[in-house]
Order: sequence, then C-alpha cells, then structure tokens
Amino acid sequence: MVELKGDERLDYLLAEELRIIQSPSVFSFSLDAVLLSRFVQVPIQKGKLIDLCSGNGVVPLLMSTRTKGNITGVEIQERLYDMAQRSVHFNGLSERIDMIHGNVKDMPKLLGHGKYEVITCNPPYFPTPSKEEINLNEHLAIARHEIMITLEEVIQVSSQLLRQGGKAAFVHRPGRLMDILSLMKKYRLEPKRLQFVYPKLAKESNTILIEGIKDGKPDLKILPPLIVYDENNEYTPDIRKILYGDE
Amino acid sequence: MVELKGDERLDYLLAEELRIIQSPSVFSFSLDAVLLSRFVQVPIQKGKLIDLCSGNGVVPLLMSTRTKGNITGVEIQERLYDMAQRSVHFNGLSERIDMIHGNVKDMPKLLGHGKYEVITCNPPYFPTPSKEEINLNEHLAIARHEIMITLEEVIQVSSQLLRQGGKAAFVHRPGRLMDILSLMKKYRLEPKRLQFVYPKLAKESNTILIEGIKDGKPDLKILPPLIVYDENNEYTPDIRKILYGDE
Repeated sequence: MVELKGDERLDYLLAEELRIIQSPSVFSFSLDAVLLSRFVQVPIQKGKLIDLCSGNGVVPLLMSTRTKGNITGVEIQERLYDMAQRSVHFNGLSERIDMIHGNVKDMPKLLGHGKYEVITCNPPYFPTPSKEEINLNEHLAIARHEIMITLEEVIQVSSQLLRQGGKAAFVHRPGRLMDILSLMKKYRLEPKRLQFVYPKLAKESNTILIEGIKDGKPDLKILPPLIVYDENNEYTPDIRKILYGDE
Repeated sequence: MVELKGDERLDYLLAEELRIIQSPSVFSFSLDAVLLSRFVQVPIQKGKLIDLCSGNGVVPLLMSTRTKGNITGVEIQERLYDMAQRSVHFNGLSERIDMIHGNVKDMPKLLGHGKYEVITCNPPYFPTPSKEEINLNEHLAIARHEIMITLEEVIQVSSQLLRQGGKAAFVHRPGRLMDILSLMKKYRLEPKRLQFVYPKLAKESNTILIEGIKDGKPDLKILPPLIVYDENNEYTPDIRKILYGDE
C-alpha cells in the first residue's frame, strides 16, 4: 500500500513493471528524464550510481531496471523527495535506491570526492528568470529554472563526485549545446556520446543527450538520431521501446 | 567544347543542368560539397559570395543555380583550379563565377576585409598526418589533410572576408564539432544553424553542416536530421532532391 497526498496519482512506468507517484500540480516526470535513464551507460552487476536533481525519482527508478548497482538520488524539494521515497518503498527498492533530501552543491562534502561510477542529471533548463516571468508554482519553478543551481554548478559537482573514468550523462536543450560542451571540458568530463532528439523527422531537435567520461580522451560520437513521433503523430518504435519496453 | 586531360571525365551535376570536369586520380567532388552548396543560405538576386578550398569548383557551380550574385572560388592547387576554370567556361558561367588560383591565407589582403555576404568552405578534414600516413597522391593529400591550411586559419580568413551580418557555412566531421564551434565563436562567427548528416537512420552521424553569422546573436538551432540512405540503401527523397533536384 502507498499513501497518496492531494492530487497525486500512482502511475505506471515501463508498462506495468514499476509504479511512480506523481501529481499534476506538483511534479510529473518528463520524457526527457526517461530518455536520460535509457541513454546513460551503466554497469550491469554492481557499482555506485547517483542521480542529481531527481524530482520524483523517475531516473533512479528506471535505472534500477538496468543495473544491480546502488543508486543514490538527490532532491532539494522536500515535497518531491517525499514522493520519490514513497515510490521507492512501494516498488520494494529501498535496499538499492537511497534518496537524499539535500542540496546538490553539498553532496561532494557529504558523500566524498571520486566515489561514483555513474552520474545522471536532468537539470533545470532555463536561466533564472525575472520575478514577472518566473513560474508561480514554486515546485515547478525550482525544477525548471536555474534558481537553486546553475548548469555550471551541476557539472562541477558531477565531476567532483565521479571517479576517474566514470561517466556523467545529462539531458538539456540544444540552445545550451555550446555551454554544456565547454563546461564539460572545463570540468574534465570529456564529451564522448551526443544524441539529438527530434520531435519528428522533419523538425528541429528540441533535446540533447550527452555523456562524458572523467579524464577521457577526446573522441565525440554523434549517435543515431532519436525521432519521437512518426508521420501519424504516434510514438516511433524507438520511443515505444524506451517507454514501454516493446521490442 | 571542352578539353579533357588524362583520365578526366565531364560528369553531370544536378541531373543535366550543369557539367563538371573530374578525374578519379586527381579529384572528384564529394557528397559533402553538394550538401554544403544546398545548406548555405544565399541572397537570391545579388551579392558577393566566395568559396574557399574550391577543388574542381563544385560548390561555386552549384551555388550559381541558387543565386544571381557573383561567386569567387579559391583553389591553391593549379591542376584543380584548371579543371574548375574549364568547367565554369563550359557551363557559360564565366561572367558570374571567378576562379582564383591562390592561397586562401592571402585572400583578405588580395580581396579586402569585410567585402563578402556569404562564405563557404569544405576544408581539408584531417590533421596533418605523419609522413608514413600521408596520402601518397599529392592532390588528394592537400585536399584532405591540413597541410596547406588549418581549420583555425580557414575560420579566421572567413571572418576577415565577411562583412558584419554575413554568413559563413562549413562542412566537417563530427569529431571536430567542439573545435569548429569554439573557433567560430573565437572569430566572431556566431553559430546559428547546425545540421547532422546520418548515413542511415540507425547510424552515427558522419558529417556536420554549420552556418554562422558574423557578430550574430547566440541562438543555435539544430536543423532536422539529414538521412542519406534508406533501409534499401537507396538515396532518401531529401538527398535525391539535393542531388538531382527531384521533388
């Protein structure tokens, strides 16, 4: 059993394999988070993985189906941390997923430097807006805008937490491509795999997935394009496989 | 009539619209050059355009079907310059295409700074190799390796030749994406349009097309993916349209 609060729902993840608590007014996971959890390369048998800016825990939950390693999720908003905790418990994953309620910037001091094999982060996408523009819903504003943490801080913390040879994977908007590439370089996360997501075959890309290796050699590959919808506005087989595990 | 030398052939360009002299042992144009000539945004009625590292003149010839402006082509290898000259003459384009036999690095002094609306370049892709690795065919070696000019020099010269607001378009390999983006920034050619070319839908990208605007505002768009072959290994409709003008 699970306690649902307010307008929360217990939604399916990956067909019926997992359940996740979300709420339209507080936080619902995005396709981007799902793509990130499938894009990142994870060790199958063991290892320490950490997801920063975890929201309702969608990335740790999905990664748990791909690795037997231990996954830590960090979320600064208590309301979202609480949703993630309950989802982890409901799915019987408390032994493998450890949610932390805290500020990402404090994690290197709290968890130690160079301890993780894999880091993921679906960070806030938008620069801090003016008071007029900011999302009036505080939960959504913090999740979407660089209010509590900037892209540079996310990348710097990721590099500190990663061991040499460890992998950091991020999802972001194409408009930040240059920033993300140069910040990864700056903090020794050498970009190795870059994938562009296109809403349709004839549309501009609206999402980028990127993975770097700490102190890796320069050798950037552009993975095959990921197209979300076909010409009938239905999910492509690639996306169905990611979302539902269809083959 | 046209004089053909050695193993040269008079090939078709754009179905039967244009002819171009090439030679398997000296130089044949690549799909990349064709893609570049279709990717770049050109003024239709007038303007000064320049193509650097022109080879046998394929980009100026193709651009001449999209603009009534004047096009200059620069090629350092006399043998290729000579092929380009004869092709331009054969197609009756001598009044609109002006081939220069010279070093790209000398062009700002020769042609003046800030005089061009559009610059294109399909530069040598590979860093200068060791003596053992270098292509034994000197014509191909110079066209393919950074022997006579580096990527940084190409971008610096392009910026010098362009007027403010003018456009520079390049084609290159994904492995140089970070270099090309940061060099364009360094020389005030703000990246605005970036397109990835994938040999097939399920393959990694092997070519990038990028256009920047001199002193433009940062706002990089990732254009729809360009797929070369379909699942039957035939050109996709997008590529047929570019190569043959098919609709």
